[in-house]
Amino acid sequence: MARIGKLVIVGVGLIGGSFALALKGAGAVGRAVGIGRGAGNTRRAMELGIIDAIGAADEATFADADLALLAVPVGQMQGVMRAIAPLLGEKTVVTDAGSTKEDVVALARRELKAAFPRFVPGHPIAGTEKSGAEAAFAALYRGRRVVLTPLEGTEPGAIALVRSAWESCGASVSEMRPREHDAVLAAVSHLPHVLAYALVDQVARHKNAKQLFSFAAGGFRDFTRIAASHPEMWRDICLANKKALLAELERYGGGLERVKRMLKRGDARALEALFSGARAARDRWLKDTQ
Amino acid sequence: MARIGKLVIVGVGLIGGSFALALKGAGAVGRAVGIGRGAGNTRRAMELGIIDAIGAADEATFADADLALLAVPVGQMQGVMRAIAPLLGEKTVVTDAGSTKEDVVALARRELKAAFPRFVPGHPIAGTEKSGAEAAFAALYRGRRVVLTPLEGTEPGAIALVRSAWESCGASVSEMRPREHDAVLAAVSHLPHVLAYALVDQVARHKNAKQLFSFAAGGFRDFTRIAASHPEMWRDICLANKKALLAELERYGGGLERVKRMLKRGDARALEALFSGARAARDRWLKDTQ
Repeated sequence: MARIGKLVIVGVGLIGGSFALALKGAGAVGRAVGIGRGAGNTRRAMELGIIDAIGAADEATFADADLALLAVPVGQMQGVMRAIAPLLGEKTVVTDAGSTKEDVVALARRELKAAFPRFVPGHPIAGTEKSGAEAAFAALYRGRRVVLTPLEGTEPGAIALVRSAWESCGASVSEMRPREHDAVLAAVSHLPHVLAYALVDQVARHKNAKQLFSFAAGGFRDFTRIAASHPEMWRDICLANKKALLAELERYGGGLERVKRMLKRGDARALEALFSGARAARDRWLKDTQ
Repeated sequence: MARIGKLVIVGVGLIGGSFALALKGAGAVGRAVGIGRGAGNTRRAMELGIIDAIGAADEATFADADLALLAVPVGQMQGVMRAIAPLLGEKTVVTDAGSTKEDVVALARRELKAAFPRFVPGHPIAGTEKSGAEAAFAALYRGRRVVLTPLEGTEPGAIALVRSAWESCGASVSEMRPREHDAVLAAVSHLPHVLAYALVDQVARHKNAKQLFSFAAGGFRDFTRIAASHPEMWRDICLANKKALLAELERYGGGLERVKRMLKRGDARALEALFSGARAARDRWLKDTQ
């Protein structure tokens, strides 16, 4: 098990806060220090026992840290990296929890400089539509997947530390190249988020929106649950992973055109094949993940 | 409260079975008789106490029925109506639970003939992705909405009986014109179903489908829950409501094109406005429905 003397969490929200709580629960961390933009949120994280102290962007916070997790929205990543680069100790390992990896790796290479070999890009595939320290809970990562995208020059010891920390949280860790990660997530996460936001937007724009919403039921609620996700965070993710997301959107548009043609020609057989194929694929997936 | 001496359920699945159970629970029905294509399912409905007897397409079943609910897939509706039309008693009220209404009204006008004024088209907006008598439960309609789409010539007494039956199930009943119903449901139910099926299909068609599914998480699961719905039923719904659904699909395609343009030009402000507007609309909806 990882034994982290001092952990620094930059951004003590759902993701960062749950990481600290899980490591504490596993007895894998000595002292957790949190820093963040929102003073109210960081204080709340103290009250909730998520962190033991409130740090700052200074050497006292970072120089003796064993591990720093950057759990800020992708759009704030560059500023954070630039600020902490000169403060990191010679052994401080840095990881992140960003939902995209190619862009974060490019930023880290530019901003972290000497510390770059101890930067292990990571993405815990977990979350809820809630945010902030209040939302954090120790079990968030249990049974969930975490992807690490280390580079050729990444120090093996740094990779091992980060892997072991996530495993202590109960997660299952895989490694991929950054580009591969971004393509996979575009297909199974970023695309559905955009689709859900777009559907709610469409209903809200209808001139009889109020009536439409009043007849929306459980299917609509579940389908659009991810449209309750944080708009700023998802704006950043979409822009950061624009290329892969556009490719998936293009493909999806083509799929909808196929459905429209089936409908127009009244092709019952093709529609049923599409629907039952999709249902079967989803059933297999659920079975495989259980 | 409705007091229905004899109720006939044609198709004792989730919808028909839950209707019978709810009316029984409310003490609103004397005797429930079920008929259906699947002998095994109808027998199971007897064992589960959903129905008191198994009927058949004959006068003994229908002539003295007070109310008959047609809870079969839209694609089987015509055959059922044609079969029962000559069997119905002079006072038997007929209703249905079809997810589309213009097509069902057209069929009923043609097939039910003399009984057409006692036909009250209906649609309970409730369901789960499960089907069959096993899936039926009395609370399915509690707090849910039911739309009735009676016509000018529909007997007021027939409308009152059907309304009162659904109210006894705990549902809230509204009336609309058939075309209006179909447009509303295309936007908030039929479109999301097609979108969910299309997304699962897209992931399943990827050459690295297995890997993609292995990184799909809770957001994907909820978004695609409705893709576990009955393929045959949804094929019929989509074809029956083809015109309204195509209009919504067209509109949705336009919405996705807008998103693609925002992404291409890196328009952070427009993306955030779209996402936060959608989130706010969804929040308002959830607040209003609670």
